[in-house]
Amino acid sequence: MPSVEFVENQVKILDQRKLPFKEEYLSLKSTAEVAGAIKNMAVRGAPAIGIAAAYGLAISANPKDDYGLLLSARPTAVDLKNALDFVEKGKTSEERKQLASSWQGKISEACASIAENGASLLEKYKNILTHCNTGAIATGVEYGTALGVIKKLKEAGKELSVYVDETRPRMQGAITSWELNRLGIPNSVIVDSAAGYFISSGKVDAVIVGADRITANGDFANKIGTYPLAVLTKENSIPFFVAAPLSSFDFSGKRIELEMRDEKEILGDNYAGCTSALNPAFDVTPAKYVTRFITDKGIFSPEGVGSIGRIHRG
Amino acid sequence: MPSVEFVENQVKILDQRKLPFKEEYLSLKSTAEVAGAIKNMAVRGAPAIGIAAAYGLAISANPKDDYGLLLSARPTAVDLKNALDFVEKGKTSEERKQLASSWQGKISEACASIAENGASLLEKYKNILTHCNTGAIATGVEYGTALGVIKKLKEAGKELSVYVDETRPRMQGAITSWELNRLGIPNSVIVDSAAGYFISSGKVDAVIVGADRITANGDFANKIGTYPLAVLTKENSIPFFVAAPLSSFDFSGKRIELEMRDEKEILGDNYAGCTSALNPAFDVTPAKYVTRFITDKGIFSPEGVGSIGRIHRG
Repeated sequence: MPSVEFVENQVKILDQRKLPFKEEYLSLKSTAEVAGAIKNMAVRGAPAIGIAAAYGLAISANPKDDYGLLLSARPTAVDLKNALDFVEKGKTSEERKQLASSWQGKISEACASIAENGASLLEKYKNILTHCNTGAIATGVEYGTALGVIKKLKEAGKELSVYVDETRPRMQGAITSWELNRLGIPNSVIVDSAAGYFISSGKVDAVIVGADRITANGDFANKIGTYPLAVLTKENSIPFFVAAPLSSFDFSGKRIELEMRDEKEILGDNYAGCTSALNPAFDVTPAKYVTRFITDKGIFSPEGVGSIGRIHRG
Repeated sequence: MPSVEFVENQVKILDQRKLPFKEEYLSLKSTAEVAGAIKNMAVRGAPAIGIAAAYGLAISANPKDDYGLLLSARPTAVDLKNALDFVEKGKTSEERKQLASSWQGKISEACASIAENGASLLEKYKNILTHCNTGAIATGVEYGTALGVIKKLKEAGKELSVYVDETRPRMQGAITSWELNRLGIPNSVIVDSAAGYFISSGKVDAVIVGADRITANGDFANKIGTYPLAVLTKENSIPFFVAAPLSSFDFSGKRIELEMRDEKEILGDNYAGCTSALNPAFDVTPAKYVTRFITDKGIFSPEGVGSIGRIHRG
């Protein structure tokens, strides 16, 4: 079952906060409930929140008002806006539901293409490091983005081993490891700050991550901790790949807004009183660190990202 | 009260596993108990485990046998060996106790000098990032190493703000934040992988860390996550300082042994079955990333580290 689905006029989502311990689904009956689930990360992953938002707008009685509610649920991933813009065109609720379903279909095809394109490109790498969670759960369709490429490599019979960043503070690495275990791909969880140790000691052949927003110049926002990984790959001369569908590109030229989340996500049970924390949920990695962008429209160098926009608009 | 003390023939240590919630002391009656407390990290921090080991050897009935027991408790910090070699020279238990006490005195003086030397060097920096815990608790004396420099800057009336890496998996950042709060120094805890965000956005003026073992060529081992920080400082052109006493230098020319710890430290309660983890406790940072070593013998460039050895032996 996909992590986001439209069933009997409700948006059914896999509650990712319960993973990897429980597979529990929530049935969201209103647009406000969908916005809430995006905000509290019951549904997360740029493509998955785009799909959830699409259905959220489809069931709205006041799509004009609810567009903003959904858009502001999380500010960084552009998939949200792209999905809403796509669905908004529907004149009736029925039309919007069809558009939302068609959006999910487009994402499904896009992620299958990413997996295909990426698997050719990464064929020669055995030890791969990844950050956060970019599997089927994060996309709401059959293939993930970065993890979709890894799944495809496995399907092609490649022998693989994956280093999984635990990804503090939300520990999305736990979901990644759980998905990899189900796919039968050997993997080891590491603390985020140990990536440098494994990369510099020659144990990692390539790093692959997803993206929440890729701009026309090739800079991109992704889960906090992506930028240091990119710097480490450059310093140690191994490739750094970014896998994302067209829906994660933003050709508007606007500055990327990076979400700051509640300090409680960090402090949890580990701290005594009067301690404060700063919790940026994303960072921006400049284009120069990216070896290749793996998209449903093909493989692009950072300099080539602008041309995706031209193809798309053209 | 210091975090390590010799009281009524027992080695009294502050149980750092209980911090920042409880200040609980353990009275260790035998060398085996001291070795156990070093291994399970009830006492941690390179200088503090050196002092604990010194007293541990002093109370031993069979110092020749127990030397190895204490030395192997944790392999990476060289303070352990340097402390044991110092105390071993005592012919009687009484002599060894005096030597152990004198070792603690030397560390105390050394850390006070580091604080003094470092405070002059770091005078112009306001926003400082640090990793792990290097305060008085980690040294067993009045001043810490890296955090001792920060304490001294505060005592000199400097306005400071500290970014505290939480330091997974053991969360030593919680102790650092607790110590900084007691010193009245504003600080914010961040996840380790967010250091890149704060450094690249110009919010950090300098990074300072401690060391577990510094070799003659200026390469050094420190808590996992130190190496990526060093790379990030170089990439963003801000200084990277290492503060450590002479007891943390190793001029033997031997390869640094990096401790791998139990995967349970990482997996904790966050993972479902069949997930495995790799848990290196330290990484090595090459000399080229270090702006200056701050020691009790003065300030040294990475190229100058060898000369500390010559001064020391001379």
